[in-house]
Amino acid sequence: MAADLTALQLIEKHRSTLDQALEAIRTRAYWSPHPEHPKAYGESAAGDGLAAFEALRGKQLDLGQPGTDAWVGDEVSPYGPELGVEYPHPDVDVLLPAMRAAMPGWREAGPETRAMVCLEILSRISARTHEFAQAVMHTSGQAFMMAFQAGGPHAQDRGLEAVAYAYVEQVRTPEAADWSKPQGKRDPLNLRKAFTAVPRGISLLIGCNTFPTWNGYPGLFASLATGNAVLVKPHPRAVLPLALTVAVAREVLSEAGFDPNLVALAAERPGEGLAKTLAVRPEIRIIDYTGSTAFGDWLEANARQAQVYTEKAGVNTVIVDSTDDYQGMLGNLAFSLSLYSGQMCTTPQNLLVPRDGITTDAGHKSYDEFVSDLAGAVSGLLGDDARANALLGAIVNPQVRERLESAAGHGEVALESRKVAHPDFPDATVRTPVIVKADGARKVWEGAEPDAAYLTECFGPVSFAVAVDSSSDAVELLRRTVREKGAMTVGAYTTSPEVEQLIEEACLEECAQLSLNLTGGVYVNQTAAFSDFHGSGGNPAANSVLCDGAFVANRFRTVEVRRPA
Amino acid sequence: MAADLTALQLIEKHRSTLDQALEAIRTRAYWSPHPEHPKAYGESAAGDGLAAFEALRGKQLDLGQPGTDAWVGDEVSPYGPELGVEYPHPDVDVLLPAMRAAMPGWREAGPETRAMVCLEILSRISARTHEFAQAVMHTSGQAFMMAFQAGGPHAQDRGLEAVAYAYVEQVRTPEAADWSKPQGKRDPLNLRKAFTAVPRGISLLIGCNTFPTWNGYPGLFASLATGNAVLVKPHPRAVLPLALTVAVAREVLSEAGFDPNLVALAAERPGEGLAKTLAVRPEIRIIDYTGSTAFGDWLEANARQAQVYTEKAGVNTVIVDSTDDYQGMLGNLAFSLSLYSGQMCTTPQNLLVPRDGITTDAGHKSYDEFVSDLAGAVSGLLGDDARANALLGAIVNPQVRERLESAAGHGEVALESRKVAHPDFPDATVRTPVIVKADGARKVWEGAEPDAAYLTECFGPVSFAVAVDSSSDAVELLRRTVREKGAMTVGAYTTSPEVEQLIEEACLEECAQLSLNLTGGVYVNQTAAFSDFHGSGGNPAANSVLCDGAFVANRFRTVEVRRPA
Repeated sequence: MAADLTALQLIEKHRSTLDQALEAIRTRAYWSPHPEHPKAYGESAAGDGLAAFEALRGKQLDLGQPGTDAWVGDEVSPYGPELGVEYPHPDVDVLLPAMRAAMPGWREAGPETRAMVCLEILSRISARTHEFAQAVMHTSGQAFMMAFQAGGPHAQDRGLEAVAYAYVEQVRTPEAADWSKPQGKRDPLNLRKAFTAVPRGISLLIGCNTFPTWNGYPGLFASLATGNAVLVKPHPRAVLPLALTVAVAREVLSEAGFDPNLVALAAERPGEGLAKTLAVRPEIRIIDYTGSTAFGDWLEANARQAQVYTEKAGVNTVIVDSTDDYQGMLGNLAFSLSLYSGQMCTTPQNLLVPRDGITTDAGHKSYDEFVSDLAGAVSGLLGDDARANALLGAIVNPQVRERLESAAGHGEVALESRKVAHPDFPDATVRTPVIVKADGARKVWEGAEPDAAYLTECFGPVSFAVAVDSSSDAVELLRRTVREKGAMTVGAYTTSPEVEQLIEEACLEECAQLSLNLTGGVYVNQTAAFSDFHGSGGNPAANSVLCDGAFVANRFRTVEVRRPA
Repeated sequence: MAADLTALQLIEKHRSTLDQALEAIRTRAYWSPHPEHPKAYGESAAGDGLAAFEALRGKQLDLGQPGTDAWVGDEVSPYGPELGVEYPHPDVDVLLPAMRAAMPGWREAGPETRAMVCLEILSRISARTHEFAQAVMHTSGQAFMMAFQAGGPHAQDRGLEAVAYAYVEQVRTPEAADWSKPQGKRDPLNLRKAFTAVPRGISLLIGCNTFPTWNGYPGLFASLATGNAVLVKPHPRAVLPLALTVAVAREVLSEAGFDPNLVALAAERPGEGLAKTLAVRPEIRIIDYTGSTAFGDWLEANARQAQVYTEKAGVNTVIVDSTDDYQGMLGNLAFSLSLYSGQMCTTPQNLLVPRDGITTDAGHKSYDEFVSDLAGAVSGLLGDDARANALLGAIVNPQVRERLESAAGHGEVALESRKVAHPDFPDATVRTPVIVKADGARKVWEGAEPDAAYLTECFGPVSFAVAVDSSSDAVELLRRTVREKGAMTVGAYTTSPEVEQLIEEACLEECAQLSLNLTGGVYVNQTAAFSDFHGSGGNPAANSVLCDGAFVANRFRTVEVRRPA
């Protein structure tokens, strides 16, 4: 096949990046090839990106896919404006066979070429990071800088990380081996064996509203790099970032001489529930999903023909036992609670604080003093509207706003939410977080059917300052919460080696990722690709991890052909 | 804890073996540390092994387990004698908590020490290979030499292979990492990260009747090496080999300073169905199963709290298109059909042969001639009773015998089964295989509900010589069989590059392991650890492979603890 981009060109361009990624996942030291700073993308990049985004609005985004039977799309930015972009709606009985037909050539390309093509896709996405940032901002409601970083370089990092894991997993077995078994005095038995990584089938990516690229890229690139075709079913409120991703992927695949139908978009009509239909199609052999526990559980129970990777919901906990940097702790927690209005799967929800207070470098602080000081830290952080807008972004959907507005019903409000006006987008719903006091006595959460509000996930800018009877009670409540509800993150502040050990042991046994004594510029809700694991895969919040061997190993199989040598 | 065996001693003894295993799974060249020849175990080993086996008979095998509420066991050798061994029956509400309590110390030991302890267990099993051979022979019905090799060194190889995969998977992530993220002119962000492989929970091994050790060791050792406790629920007809394994494991764990309850036996009362009860216990987080499709499917659907690894049933196919070694092909096929009376999950069931015959170095052979020649080859191979007994072993259970006896109902019998007398065990049921002619015209197997007998698994010494209209029809039938029924193995004989390519492509697309043109001393039903994959995990016969990264990667999770550096 005539290709504008040959495998050799791609290797020359990207192999060293792949090698650095392979080294990074081995050492887990800091590394990223994708700059975080908007200015790193050139003088005109910001303006060009905004212009490119504006040019998409009100248009049909034609991806050249087979089997398009309608044009759909009704995205409205959480900042107010309707996007007006229309996307192809698939006749799946046409599209799925076309995707299957695309796979043999992709399988034959082998792991290295597939990795190189994936890196070229990521590299072109990287070059358009400003445009993607606008698309992420106006679908997720993230503030611009967060949409830029989390939706751009950090998402690209996670995609590249998945490619690296996928590549190394496939080349653990050699392409060929000579096998010679001694037979004493007789001639040895000699076989020539060939090993080929083969795809599972079509992989379905079910995107989420809040982090369409960050949560979408790992599954997309892990499946593509292992030889599968990938059908992208975005959240209906966050189609554009993934539709652009599909467009870039199709363009690169074509240029590299492969069938563009290896990656396709499945946009849906309002209320269609297309994910549910697609998830049980026999052609779909892998599913990546980020979203509600209810639908994640449904997928795990019903999409039995597929490998299902889910990131669902959890109740994230921070234990506050003691600190030698009280102001640093307050500032760090205030930022964690405020970032993207708590609309991260990693945002702390429950702060467990001993009822009789905590020891700090600023003296003993009672439970009430701590809660009041934390409320003050959040208010201070978000006191200036410009800074508040830059941190909070917009409330992503009406459900989050409803949870925020009903938070007062859960108990005494220690910090009220306030409305923040946005200078550029008057229709945006921008809100500061609320902190609710709660009783963490054992009798409240022990027993068969405890009903405290803090025991279930309350996704959005609502946190609970839970007064517990002791730090060891806090650890018990943490264990129970992780075991029953799951957690993407656990944080803890303590200067006591004994308490630290109790908490570490709880996290090791209940399988939760722990951040200790963060007081500076690293936050419990942020993880870095190539170094931090996102989720543990070992508690109910998620059945998989970004990113480890288990995330990629089941996306392909190895077929052996052996013959006499 | 005072240990008779220190980690250092174990490393000195076994580390180089582990390193060789790691190298073997990387190159997939021939390697084994476990001798195949019975004489390699010493002058007196055969007699000592037989004596040890005889000494077990009629006794209680006390494993020193907590929560034993009864003694059970009613194994009868397929060769006739009752074994009379009694095993502890567990009160699972006592045993499972004791197993959970054993896990933290095992987790803390880390991947290398766990691997070394596993290798010590395997090494002690290896030293008792003759005793295990007797135990396998008198539960599976395998002939002595096969019980010795497949139940001994080959099983130990598969166990060691699983340990190697488990070890390397856990150490892909370092124990600790320093992470330093540049912040332009400001100080970098510095974190110290610790990574710990943590177990899933208790792993349940559900053993099978025919290959208790060979099919049991991979899951047992993969789970143990990744930090889990392992509860072994043997097939009620094949308890002894796994009970001895549990005894050795408990002995080594104790000597190495670990809680022996990390490995325990769950023998059951007749008809108790203990596997079903255990499989849905919340403590059980991993299940390894070999056996019927019905129960495997039940486990996959119902044991939702666990990672489930199944090897079920399939319909194995050999395509006979052409050969340049007709006698070699006939001899090889005859051996494959005869070995252990076809009671291997890898034995060919359907031989697809063009209706108008095949091209060979001995001239053109019609379908009838080929079938007749193959029948003759089997008869010749098994004509001598001593050789027949050495190859066939005994029929493992009444269900297999019934299938054999009703084979004539499926069509014209090309080779009748004959009874073989066993000089040492007059009550043994020894039978030669039957070959049935079948119509492989498209109209028989196309359409929605084809009902040809050869389209479903007929486990045991029954094969079908299926007359197809062409070799390309054979490939289509192969595809359909693999896709719908699964296959552990596919074989093919062809001298045509075109046909070979069609078959290879079918196996790559339908995900089946292919052996081409085997005419010598390697058989389609045998795989070698460290080199061959057993099953593909990508068709209905099995959802996993012995052994690859996917077989081990989900048996543990990695917990990260990060703190400011």
